[in-house]
Amino acid sequence: MKYTSKILQETVDAFSSLPGIGRKSAMRIALHLANKGRQRIMNFSQTLMMLSEGLKTCKTCYAYADEEQCSICSNPSRNHKVICVVESIRDLMAIEETQQFSGVYHVLNGLISPVDGIGPDQLNIDPLLARINTDEVDEIIMAIRPCIEGDTTVYYLTRQLQGKEVKISIIARGISFGSELEFADEFTLGRSIAERVPYSLQVK
Amino acid sequence: MKYTSKILQETVDAFSSLPGIGRKSAMRIALHLANKGRQRIMNFSQTLMMLSEGLKTCKTCYAYADEEQCSICSNPSRNHKVICVVESIRDLMAIEETQQFSGVYHVLNGLISPVDGIGPDQLNIDPLLARINTDEVDEIIMAIRPCIEGDTTVYYLTRQLQGKEVKISIIARGISFGSELEFADEFTLGRSIAERVPYSLQVK
Repeated sequence: MKYTSKILQETVDAFSSLPGIGRKSAMRIALHLANKGRQRIMNFSQTLMMLSEGLKTCKTCYAYADEEQCSICSNPSRNHKVICVVESIRDLMAIEETQQFSGVYHVLNGLISPVDGIGPDQLNIDPLLARINTDEVDEIIMAIRPCIEGDTTVYYLTRQLQGKEVKISIIARGISFGSELEFADEFTLGRSIAERVPYSLQVK
Repeated sequence: MKYTSKILQETVDAFSSLPGIGRKSAMRIALHLANKGRQRIMNFSQTLMMLSEGLKTCKTCYAYADEEQCSICSNPSRNHKVICVVESIRDLMAIEETQQFSGVYHVLNGLISPVDGIGPDQLNIDPLLARINTDEVDEIIMAIRPCIEGDTTVYYLTRQLQGKEVKISIIARGISFGSELEFADEFTLGRSIAERVPYSLQVK
């Protein structure tokens, strides 16, 4: 595509380098911004400048934060005795959206994957162990996706936590809401039967 | 969705205000940028600053430009005697991409639409007439989409150009490549038969 303006072309290039945005969408966005006028673009640019200069990593849970601690770790109404261990900030956000968890988090920033050369040292595992030693922690919830790397990470963490007085639990794995039993993989279906839970008529 | 950082939330808000980007995509983009580090975000922000401060409108054709004239109008190898009239810069880009046109453009920046209160005065029609009076123009190609507003605009322009020594043509309307005749609307199909062209075995 030929552009009448180099500035426009650079804007399209910048947007199309982002995940999930193709050149046509980037073009549409660039023209949208150009039409919106100077102030709107300036605001956008300043938001990004803030992101570049102001964004910190929470020293406790390793999520993104504005201060030394993120808004969850610094919130006294959260239950700081229950830590939910997640692979990424995206997973943290997904769990927050469910509004089913009132504890705090710990972002590992990846999973143990010997094939990719990622060992425990490259993840935020030591700070997690330090948190458990220092703070009063009752429970660690492993909210790690079911896969070889995930299972390896959960196994490694559990080994490290042996002997400590902390309850370790893992998120339930089973058939997703709305999915068909016949299309579920054998492993998931088998596990959902082996790990069946008592059924109660009471709505939780 | 709850965010651990206000800066991150503002970034997500900024991206999700763009056309075609939902909150989940905006989240993905914001985290992608946050992961890429300070320099990458700074560059992005500076590109937008350039867009806000440097983008001009070509004084000849009203496309976006870096200088007083856009790269097409200032290109001596383009045929300045043929002006292709388009509704928007997006349409200009689409035609440029076909590489079938070596003339210059004129961006109307809309179509006449009495229902929406858009008259000829709000469009770049007077500058087009001025161009035709001043420059040596052989042909005006109406590359306007077929719709009531488009047809009105073409009709108005043609009336204004009456008496001037300039050839007026309109882009061919008919069945698109790859589409089924049975699903074409009556108007298009009827017109494609009425305006049939001689068939030649020679490849153009």
